[in-house]
Amino acid sequence: MTDEVVTLAHGAGGKASRRLVEELFLPELRNPLLEPLGDAALVSANGTRLALTTDSYVVRPLVFPGGDIGELAVNGTVNDLAVSGATPLALTAAFVIEEGFPVDDLRALAHSAAQAAQAAGVSIAAGDTKVVERGAADGLFVTTSGVGLLDPRVRLEPSRVRPGDRVLVSGGIAEHGIAVMLARGNLALELDLESDTAPLHELAAALCELGGDLRWMRDPTRGGLATTLNELASGAGATIVLEETAIPVRDDVRSACELLGIDPFYVANEGKLVAVVAPAVAEAAVAALRRHPLGAFAADIGEVREDDVPLVLAETPFGGSRIVDMLVGDPLPRIC
Amino acid sequence: MTDEVVTLAHGAGGKASRRLVEELFLPELRNPLLEPLGDAALVSANGTRLALTTDSYVVRPLVFPGGDIGELAVNGTVNDLAVSGATPLALTAAFVIEEGFPVDDLRALAHSAAQAAQAAGVSIAAGDTKVVERGAADGLFVTTSGVGLLDPRVRLEPSRVRPGDRVLVSGGIAEHGIAVMLARGNLALELDLESDTAPLHELAAALCELGGDLRWMRDPTRGGLATTLNELASGAGATIVLEETAIPVRDDVRSACELLGIDPFYVANEGKLVAVVAPAVAEAAVAALRRHPLGAFAADIGEVREDDVPLVLAETPFGGSRIVDMLVGDPLPRIC
Repeated sequence: MTDEVVTLAHGAGGKASRRLVEELFLPELRNPLLEPLGDAALVSANGTRLALTTDSYVVRPLVFPGGDIGELAVNGTVNDLAVSGATPLALTAAFVIEEGFPVDDLRALAHSAAQAAQAAGVSIAAGDTKVVERGAADGLFVTTSGVGLLDPRVRLEPSRVRPGDRVLVSGGIAEHGIAVMLARGNLALELDLESDTAPLHELAAALCELGGDLRWMRDPTRGGLATTLNELASGAGATIVLEETAIPVRDDVRSACELLGIDPFYVANEGKLVAVVAPAVAEAAVAALRRHPLGAFAADIGEVREDDVPLVLAETPFGGSRIVDMLVGDPLPRIC
Repeated sequence: MTDEVVTLAHGAGGKASRRLVEELFLPELRNPLLEPLGDAALVSANGTRLALTTDSYVVRPLVFPGGDIGELAVNGTVNDLAVSGATPLALTAAFVIEEGFPVDDLRALAHSAAQAAQAAGVSIAAGDTKVVERGAADGLFVTTSGVGLLDPRVRLEPSRVRPGDRVLVSGGIAEHGIAVMLARGNLALELDLESDTAPLHELAAALCELGGDLRWMRDPTRGGLATTLNELASGAGATIVLEETAIPVRDDVRSACELLGIDPFYVANEGKLVAVVAPAVAEAAVAALRRHPLGAFAADIGEVREDDVPLVLAETPFGGSRIVDMLVGDPLPRIC
């Protein structure tokens, strides 16, 4: 890695993040559990197959339309387990707090984390609290980890994705990132947008019913749909061809993206999943997602094709197609 | 909780930390897994009994004599699992990094974390990296979590501690906290002290061989031996009577404590465990600890006595005794 210092781009979930992981952390920590670099690691305990995951949350502001850091941190870890094909068993939450942080705010965020855990049917089983001096942190950072029980019916890996498979998304994209950007209040936009933060365990469980026909799932958070699908293309050694008009984006989100000059493909989601399924079950899978309130706008958005060079392509309504690359740089720092 | 804002004392591991947990987090998050407030939560997965734990590390400086934040974060989580009677299965590590942090320093700390994991026979199976703007964090914070497989031969709970049981410590106390204090360089002391950071899984495994005669274990980190034993006394509803002269403290550590005006009983350890064992096996247990290099200075330091008011007492060489309370305030902020 040629970078001399860590930059905001290294935390954005795109190309620089990938480089930091692949060229710094992976060579140092190299081990078979870490190497797949999935949303969760697969660990075996006395023959019981577990998923294990962790994420730090540094979102700013701590409270935003549709959610807050407490709820986000719980949903994020629930979702990383869920898209790995695991039922969440227990979570942990560690708080790094800046001296002077209001106790009432902390209580409200703990309450919100607890409610999110309850909604996902999981307990926060262990925690930790550290306090740093004024100025040594920005209010509050939360790190959640989770352990889940893997569904024995599915094996979700990029290598299981085959040409002809369909790519599904569970609803409109870019809502979380845009809502958080607007909540910072330094844009002259008056829009009533909310983060989509939500627990995806029920949607994921519905897809796990497909067994082997469910090839792969992921929640497209930092770096957005574009980055998640690029990672899939590269892991699967295949090309993903998206029908641009099939990808659900709410009109107000699309307008906000246009005004901000940001492509919604790169904006973080916190309550959506992307799945790849066998073509024969695609219609049933979309129907299953739509039966759940969180999947009401689920759609079949594209196809996996065999190709020598793994790529993500978006076919435009005008018959052309463009390459959708991974996120480069960080247009939206501290979004989660 | 009457406090209006979070203070450094809330992060010190003593009385204020306990209040924050018992009066803010516990009422919000209340669930049977969290409630024992042990070093790790006990979780069942398909009948397999697991321990789950998390800790954030905010130690300053990041590198100190005898260790660094990478090694400390891994050992700390390994130790929380070990003293819960669990064999570590896998760890996670989440990094919150300040923009501008040198990549070479990050690589060195990741290397050190990897080496510590290898020494403890465990993998860092999953990770996360977030970056915040310059000034929004103090260099680097690391949060590790871990899952372990519980040893079926032991059940370690304060309620299993009985009058007559012996209290053991695996070696000299106060080494970590004093080494970190001195490393800050704002004291005019020139002492060659090193942190005791070390993985305790082998010492803990040796004690687990005692089966039911091993009642309870804990690693006395923040708040030191005094706070850990007060938590035990309160959980067990018993009084712990320590022989002050039996407690191992290296001469140079004792001198530093005297110069700093700090009681070594309250100083954090990162490579020591305290155990309570049945009186009949106490001698064998000390011998087992001493057979391991990390337990060379293990000692039997006191006894559990029945009492109406749970207390920790230290009997002085002059025949008197003094009450050893929990840590109040925070004499040594950001020690771990």
